[in-house]
Amino acid sequence: MAVGLDKLPRLHPVKGVRLGTAASGTRYQDRDDLMVMELVEGAVSSAVFTRNAFCAAPVTVARRHMAVSTPRALLTNAGNANAGTGDSGIDSAVACCEGLAAVMQLHSNEVLPFSTGVIGEPLPVAGLVDAMPAAAQDLAEDNWERAASAIMTTDTVAKGSSVQLELSGGRVTITGICKGSGMIRPDMATMLAFVATDAELSQSVLDDALGAAVGNSFNRITVDGDTSTNDACVISATGSSGVSITEADDIDIFTQALARVCTELAQAIIRDGEGATKFVTIQVEQGADGNECLAVAYTIAHSPLVKTALFASDPNWGRILAAVGRAGIQDLDIDKVELYLDDVCIAERGARSENYTEQAGQAVMDRDEMTIRVVLGRGEAMETVWTSDLSHEYVRINAEYRS
Amino acid sequence: MAVGLDKLPRLHPVKGVRLGTAASGTRYQDRDDLMVMELVEGAVSSAVFTRNAFCAAPVTVARRHMAVSTPRALLTNAGNANAGTGDSGIDSAVACCEGLAAVMQLHSNEVLPFSTGVIGEPLPVAGLVDAMPAAAQDLAEDNWERAASAIMTTDTVAKGSSVQLELSGGRVTITGICKGSGMIRPDMATMLAFVATDAELSQSVLDDALGAAVGNSFNRITVDGDTSTNDACVISATGSSGVSITEADDIDIFTQALARVCTELAQAIIRDGEGATKFVTIQVEQGADGNECLAVAYTIAHSPLVKTALFASDPNWGRILAAVGRAGIQDLDIDKVELYLDDVCIAERGARSENYTEQAGQAVMDRDEMTIRVVLGRGEAMETVWTSDLSHEYVRINAEYRS
Repeated sequence: MAVGLDKLPRLHPVKGVRLGTAASGTRYQDRDDLMVMELVEGAVSSAVFTRNAFCAAPVTVARRHMAVSTPRALLTNAGNANAGTGDSGIDSAVACCEGLAAVMQLHSNEVLPFSTGVIGEPLPVAGLVDAMPAAAQDLAEDNWERAASAIMTTDTVAKGSSVQLELSGGRVTITGICKGSGMIRPDMATMLAFVATDAELSQSVLDDALGAAVGNSFNRITVDGDTSTNDACVISATGSSGVSITEADDIDIFTQALARVCTELAQAIIRDGEGATKFVTIQVEQGADGNECLAVAYTIAHSPLVKTALFASDPNWGRILAAVGRAGIQDLDIDKVELYLDDVCIAERGARSENYTEQAGQAVMDRDEMTIRVVLGRGEAMETVWTSDLSHEYVRINAEYRS
Repeated sequence: MAVGLDKLPRLHPVKGVRLGTAASGTRYQDRDDLMVMELVEGAVSSAVFTRNAFCAAPVTVARRHMAVSTPRALLTNAGNANAGTGDSGIDSAVACCEGLAAVMQLHSNEVLPFSTGVIGEPLPVAGLVDAMPAAAQDLAEDNWERAASAIMTTDTVAKGSSVQLELSGGRVTITGICKGSGMIRPDMATMLAFVATDAELSQSVLDDALGAAVGNSFNRITVDGDTSTNDACVISATGSSGVSITEADDIDIFTQALARVCTELAQAIIRDGEGATKFVTIQVEQGADGNECLAVAYTIAHSPLVKTALFASDPNWGRILAAVGRAGIQDLDIDKVELYLDDVCIAERGARSENYTEQAGQAVMDRDEMTIRVVLGRGEAMETVWTSDLSHEYVRINAEYRS
């Protein structure tokens, strides 16, 4: 079902990172659902978390641990989000960290916990702890693909991205995996992304690079920014390549490469969106500022009427214009607005373009991937978001999930 | 399919109002699709229109006509919204007003045009004008039910509400009809509501009464306020009963009765929501102000994940809490939040209630009508919105519409 997603690309190992997986049997049968990512001593990590007020227990614990320690292991379980679980959920997340710390001879503060799956059920701590020795036993540098599979929930494919780049000091690798297949926004029960590099970066350079990369990738596939209870994206820099990134040029190149990896991961989530049959880029141009471009883009991206028309491959551009019109832009001059499907101009000056034909619109709509482009005629800002359609399959998946 | 909607209640005629319908054959076969509502000379009218920047041509023309004349006839066609049609759409709406004015011996400024249906297609003016004499011929005081049917598009049932009330000066009637079956927000192609009373009211009292009634009815069934390109609600007071409403007590009673009619009409739209299988009241209490209550209520009401869970009758309260948590409430103390399904307390203090059982939640979810109640513990404000679920049928209707 995933749109334009083939099998995983080659995921280059990252020196200083080992990954291991195991099957806890707590929710899924016959598959690994526990993933450990071990970081070499001295690795620097940066993370962004959900802004949801009901953030899940593992998010609270991960934040606390990062505040007092340098992460040495990331622990993820799939199938239970440990969200909406109150104080006992916190205890459960801590217990898992303690369990893994004992196996790996770390302090529990050096373990960051991540959970994804159903909300509101108690975390099956004992089953997870029982599986930890097997996951630790499994640790190896070339386990990225199996790690990507072990963190899946309703995902239909494993997701990863990897690049190698030549910097002034030598070659470095950036490899990442993610999970999530919420269609409209990844709030079903979490988008998780784990990225690592063998480059050596200071904490502040790494923080800045992650912020820039996430802002134009993971934060552009969701209406309300970071909205799930469990969303998290972590990047760890091991420094094991011996290539230090301190020059401005190298920082730029690295940041751009990290952004490419994050964008590919974020787009993979949309391509694997629940029931997705289309991958749609929404590009809003000539806005007075970025915020109004985003307001228009998200209003289109979340209109159930636009999304069902996309599913039907129906060039029902009236629904798109109606979404633009209710996006809350002050003093929008509709005579200056233009609407394109790929390169086909559909509407201008408040009405259907004179040259538009239903056939031309239909030809674009029949594509699996397309761009909805809106020109606002108000300024020079531009923003892009990615979304998917609203299909029968989406309703089926989300009506049947849990049951 | 409509939830809890039987046949139309008795719609009392309103002295001073006559209605007529006819079949133009422009889009639908074998049904009336043109509706004329004639107002006696001296009737006072008040209206609210969509705030969508891409408002439809008839909205623009209706506003202009109301600014210069007192309405004597409301003209509605179903099947074509005359929206996204640019300058020629304005010409078409004016031509329709001129057509009806000629038949009814009015000035064209005294006619208000309303259109509902597909967006972006040219209005079939000639066909509509041809049907106007038949509609005018048909004018009668007891035609409310047929009028309610003639304005339907994807509606599955005609919608109306009617009350009679005793005031100090005697008995007055308020009768209204509406159309609209957009599920998530009525922006498919319009919510239209026409209400009339034989009471005598000044323009300012009528304006205030309509504003109060709409604010707690039609504006509580949609996320973005008035979001469609064509939405309109008109109330006309003929004064034909001879009962004048000037005393504060009478004004209060009248306003409350009007609010009841508007609420019943608004709820009918949700009950007939596209593919709706549930009628859900979302009540948010103890907010610091009304806006934050509405923000929470709308975030829940528009969460596709909540809506699909409602469709599945799945008490997946984690999705509701997640929606509360991302509604953007500053400094929300989740320990004070409580969540109820009807009278069943599901969550409190950030976690599942100790007394909650899945069976109790399931029992509520199995009902066709239920209330999701959120207690924020921050103040004394309260707001209520009404919504529906997200079903396979919704996707089918909106993916197939137009085709």
